[in-house]
Order: sequence, then structure tokens, then C-alpha cells
Amino acid sequence: TPAAAPGAEVATPPPYDIMKYGFPSLENVRYREGHVLSYDNRNKTANWVCEKFTAQHLNAKAADRKKTQFFEDQEIYELWRAKLSDYKRSGYDRGHLAAAGNHKYYQKAMDATFSLSNMSPQVGKGFNQGYWKELEDYVRDLTKTSTNVYVCTGPLYLPNEVRNGKKYVRFEVIGEGNVAVPTHFFKTMLCEKNDGSVAIEAYILPNEVIDSKIPLKQFRVPLHKVEAAAGGLLYPGLLDKYKYVVA
Amino acid sequence: TPAAAPGAEVATPPPYDIMKYGFPSLENVRYREGHVLSYDNRNKTANWVCEKFTAQHLNAKAADRKKTQFFEDQEIYELWRAKLSDYKRSGYDRGHLAAAGNHKYYQKAMDATFSLSNMSPQVGKGFNQGYWKELEDYVRDLTKTSTNVYVCTGPLYLPNEVRNGKKYVRFEVIGEGNVAVPTHFFKTMLCEKNDGSVAIEAYILPNEVIDSKIPLKQFRVPLHKVEAAAGGLLYPGLLDKYKYVVA
Ligand SMILES: [Mg+2]
Ligand SMILES: [Mg+2]
Repeated sequence: TPAAAPGAEVATPPPYDIMKYGFPSLENVRYREGHVLSYDNRNKTANWVCEKFTAQHLNAKAADRKKTQFFEDQEIYELWRAKLSDYKRSGYDRGHLAAAGNHKYYQKAMDATFSLSNMSPQVGKGFNQGYWKELEDYVRDLTKTSTNVYVCTGPLYLPNEVRNGKKYVRFEVIGEGNVAVPTHFFKTMLCEKNDGSVAIEAYILPNEVIDSKIPLKQFRVPLHKVEAAAGGLLYPGLLDKYKYVVA
Repeated sequence: TPAAAPGAEVATPPPYDIMKYGFPSLENVRYREGHVLSYDNRNKTANWVCEKFTAQHLNAKAADRKKTQFFEDQEIYELWRAKLSDYKRSGYDRGHLAAAGNHKYYQKAMDATFSLSNMSPQVGKGFNQGYWKELEDYVRDLTKTSTNVYVCTGPLYLPNEVRNGKKYVRFEVIGEGNVAVPTHFFKTMLCEKNDGSVAIEAYILPNEVIDSKIPLKQFRVPLHKVEAAAGGLLYPGLLDKYKYVVA
């Protein structure tokens, strides 16, 4: 596909295309410009966020990050809505699940990624601004060898403490609203190739400073490991015979 | 209503009657004999379990607890199914959410409450076998002054640790499958009265030994406090003007 002219908007992938391979779950599903998410009322962040893009989307430079701003999601009932004040002075970044940089093709699509429903509290330096950002770059690079890339991203709450032989899940909650700080994040990519084949990659990263010298493959996991932890099947519409092909 | 003859079965409330006042959420909803539940794949226990019963149901003694046995829920995908082995030697009881004692009217309804999807790991002595059991008795007693009682029960994962001014949610997970041990449980009751009015009561109890001398009213909370913590609206089909009537 030829790159769009600089400044030209490229069409937003319609929801039925973003979700071509099926829904990980059906709870609180929201269609947004350029992404689709399931919201977790209890933890006040998404369960998962799905995106789909191509090289053409990434090459279009129609959107300007300076025009965006973080906002509270008015479509979520107030009891469960994450607030700007919850994140304030928490020490955590408002970390994008669907990355803003994937949505330069259309201002409204980039704007939509700044909803707090698309955010989780992330460690800033060394994670959101470091290793996690590099993972986002890596995902975008997959468009160089793929016709379409289907990305799913979400928080995890994994056992992270052992004491006296017992296992615990322990995570911080921030603000008056007790927004959960996930212990880990997952990102999975389904890449459609020119020859009609598909390849899947899955990663689980801890929400902490990660040394940039550690190779990304060290965080690669089988897809079912994400599925077990996230509580949903990823790409459930994909025929099993294609599902576990390793890229 | 006259009590049923000893040993006679009373009809199971149909799901549309159990759920007359609406669904707290729509994720992984399962219809069972005598109760309806939403399953939490991530924590491997229910999100909520709803029941409805009358004095007639409770007076019928058709079911025998000795005929029941705990069982793994084959309707849950294996990745997320709680196992008998997860609970074994965990130190926790397999605690009923829909209480077995509410379902003596029909053997199959009592049997169904022994599914691990209707269980959460509960502290045994002083909670499952103590204060929580007394709450279950109290709920049954409400049928003496109510024509129908609609009960909703579920686990909670509340902030339970403060350190250096930061709040944390910390809970144990048991077994190979990491079944979550909830920090608290809620129980809410909507009682339909003879005069056509309704009254709602809501309770949140910590999953720990509770001194039986503490009055139950100390654990009573406004309904919206359960709704905020559970991530769902309770009795959402009820008109607002009736919703917050205090019994
Ligand atoms: Mg980021
Ligand atoms: Mg019990």
C-alpha cells in the first residue's frame, strides 16, 4: 500500500474489522474511534483494548499529539469511572494501553486514546517511558512484514509475593477512587502476512523499571499463558490450526 | 402460603424470576437449578450469585445434604475452572455463596450449590462455620416477614493494607490454579412485603474470624457501597424511588 500524503487522514478501521478475530470477553465493551475496549468496573481500568492497523495507518501523519488531552470517560457510570484526580500525585504515569502513536492517521482516533478508560497506572521512567515504549515501537515495526496487525493490550494482576509458602496477589490502588495499579501488562499481536498466513506473538511485562539491555524475547510467552491470566481467549475466532503458529 | 408436606419437592424458581430485578453484570452468566451466577475467570470464583426464595421453599425438606458432593464446574473452560485440588490443604473452607440451606426444596437445586463456581475460599472456624452462617440464618428468617426474598452474594477484593501512605489490595491465591481468597464478601437482600413495598439490606463482611457478639448491623452498608466495590448495580431493574428504602 502506498503511504498517504503527509497530513492526509486515513480511514479508521471499523469495529468489525478491529474485532475480526473475536472478543476476549463481552463485559462492558465500548467502541471507540480506532479501538475497542472492555472496561473493568472493579479495577477502574480496561480488561483489554484491541486495535488494528497497517503500514498505511502508521505512515499517515494527520494527527497532532499536542492537540490531545487526557479525559475522564463520561460513558462509564460515575461509581466506576477513573478520575484525573485519582492519578494526580500518585507517582504513576497515565499509561496508554492502545498507544497514541498507533493512531496518527486521524485526529479523533488519537484523541480517543487519551480516555482514562484506555489508561492504567504505569511506572513512568524505565517502563512507560522506557521498555514498554520500546515494545510499542516493536509492534509498529511488525507492519513492515505484515499486511495487518491486530493488537490486544491489557493489565494483569498476578501473584507477586510468597510468604510462608503462601502466594499472594498484591497491588497498589491510587486516588480516592482506588484505581488499580496492575502488577503486569500483556500485549499480543496477530500479524496477517502477504502469503495469507498468520503469526501470533504474546508478551507479559512486569509494571516496573526494566533494564533496556534485557532482550524482549525474555518476556515472550505462549498465548494461552496470557489467556489464563487475563481471563479471556485472545483471537477466539481464529481457527485452532492457525492459532499457535510461532512467528 | 401453607408449608409443603415433609419430603415434598417445591418448584425451583425459574431464572426469569430469580433475576426479576435485573442483572448486576452480564459476564459469564450461568443458569443453574435454583440460582444464577456470573463467573470471574481471573479469580476462579463467582462475581455474584443470585437466589430467590419464599417461606414455602425453606419449609420444604425434600433435599438431603448427605446426598450432595462438591464438584468442579465442567461448564467453565478448563483454563479458568477452580479445581478440587486447588482447595485441598489450603486451610480454607469451600464456602457457599448461594447457601445450601436455602435449597432444601429440591435435591437438584441443593446439589447445584456444591459446584466450585458457587464457592469461594472462606475462613472456616469463626466465619464460614460462624458469623457468615449466622448471616445466612438471618437471611432465611426474612421470609417470615416477606413474601419473596431476592438474595445476591459475592466476593470482594478491597484495599486492606496501608503502608507509607499508600493503599494496597492484598489477597492470597490457593492451589496450582491460583484461586483468589476474597478479602470480603457481600450479601444483599431485596424483600418483597405483603403490602407491595420492598426493602433492601446490604452487608459487607471481612473474610476472617468475627466475634459472634458483634451485632450484624455493624456490617450493614448502603447498597451503593456494595455496587461500587462489586463493579455492578444490584437490582438495577428496580425503580429508583423504591431502591434505597431502608428496612
Ligand atoms: Mg505509554
Ligand atoms: Mg457456608
